[in-house]
Amino acid sequence: MNIQKQDILNMETRYRANFINSLGGFKSVVLVGTRSKSGLENLSIFSSLFHLGANPALCGVIVRPDVSERHTLENIEETGCYTLNQILPEFVDAAHHCSARYPREVSEFEASGLTPEYLFDFQAPFVKESHLKFSVELREKHPLAINGTILLIGEIMQVVIPENCLQESGFIDLEQARTVTCSGLDSYHTTQKLVQLPYAKPKF
Amino acid sequence: MNIQKQDILNMETRYRANFINSLGGFKSVVLVGTRSKSGLENLSIFSSLFHLGANPALCGVIVRPDVSERHTLENIEETGCYTLNQILPEFVDAAHHCSARYPREVSEFEASGLTPEYLFDFQAPFVKESHLKFSVELREKHPLAINGTILLIGEIMQVVIPENCLQESGFIDLEQARTVTCSGLDSYHTTQKLVQLPYAKPKF
Repeated sequence: MNIQKQDILNMETRYRANFINSLGGFKSVVLVGTRSKSGLENLSIFSSLFHLGANPALCGVIVRPDVSERHTLENIEETGCYTLNQILPEFVDAAHHCSARYPREVSEFEASGLTPEYLFDFQAPFVKESHLKFSVELREKHPLAINGTILLIGEIMQVVIPENCLQESGFIDLEQARTVTCSGLDSYHTTQKLVQLPYAKPKF
Repeated sequence: MNIQKQDILNMETRYRANFINSLGGFKSVVLVGTRSKSGLENLSIFSSLFHLGANPALCGVIVRPDVSERHTLENIEETGCYTLNQILPEFVDAAHHCSARYPREVSEFEASGLTPEYLFDFQAPFVKESHLKFSVELREKHPLAINGTILLIGEIMQVVIPENCLQESGFIDLEQARTVTCSGLDSYHTTQKLVQLPYAKPKF
């Protein structure tokens, strides 16, 4: 079936959010750990993480200016520090709960039952239950006038990785790490490797 | 095991590319179809697609300034039009081949064996073999000085979707659509739904 721009504009708000959020395919989903200058911890779930470059090692996330993500943004602006923690099947429910709208003084660690963990003297908390996680320092902030979202560009500082997931090529076996992926706003999936292909060269 | 920033800087280039590209988790992977003003068709594989907003319906992709993606960028700059086409297991090899570095006059459709398809009088070609695909018009272009990449923001114009994948809530069942996900630079995966969770509300 075909859907046109006008059909999208006419969709009910929640329906459109579900539709457009699932249209782009499976997504990276991570927990973003932060702490305010005054020591308030925050944990938020993001599905807009993307790779930006390997040298320097950069990643981007999009922050919406709404309540649940604003605390994360405020903490990142105050400290320049955040952690990105991958999600395992056994704590998907707790991770999803971090999208609930708590006031800033409530820690989503406490609300979800996940455990803050401080490593490397880094200012932001990691998620102890996560096996594959990394710390990020904010490098650039780009407000996107088109819809009021904000692009945060960060540099990867430290990585915690299970030794048996790192292959000789540098490739990280995310299935061995049991990382989940998501679709839409609320659906979580495990994966099964189909194929790993060699570097593509022109045929002619 | 722990890996520090200096370890990342010391990695061999290809090793680091594999490592950082897989670190962020599973990614959306799509074929980007374009056509130049003079009629040259181009097809490129991207794993940096992310959701930017539902109203207006916006998505972002990051373009690197290197050879294989530059033709895509040139065509988008000339016409403002591109298509995003999800990948099915049966044409993963052909899709991956679109990352090979062909000169601009070679169509990756021909090189890969995939079929260009013109729909809705839209200027850019879709991939006929893809079941779930959408057209995009360029709205903003943000050069990111930090590493010379470019963020393209586009508005979703038309969507082709198998009717049996669209649920009552607006959620698109990507497993029913048989969309694949990727990790790193070269690994492709199918998925299995773990759970779909209700909208998260505060417990207290």
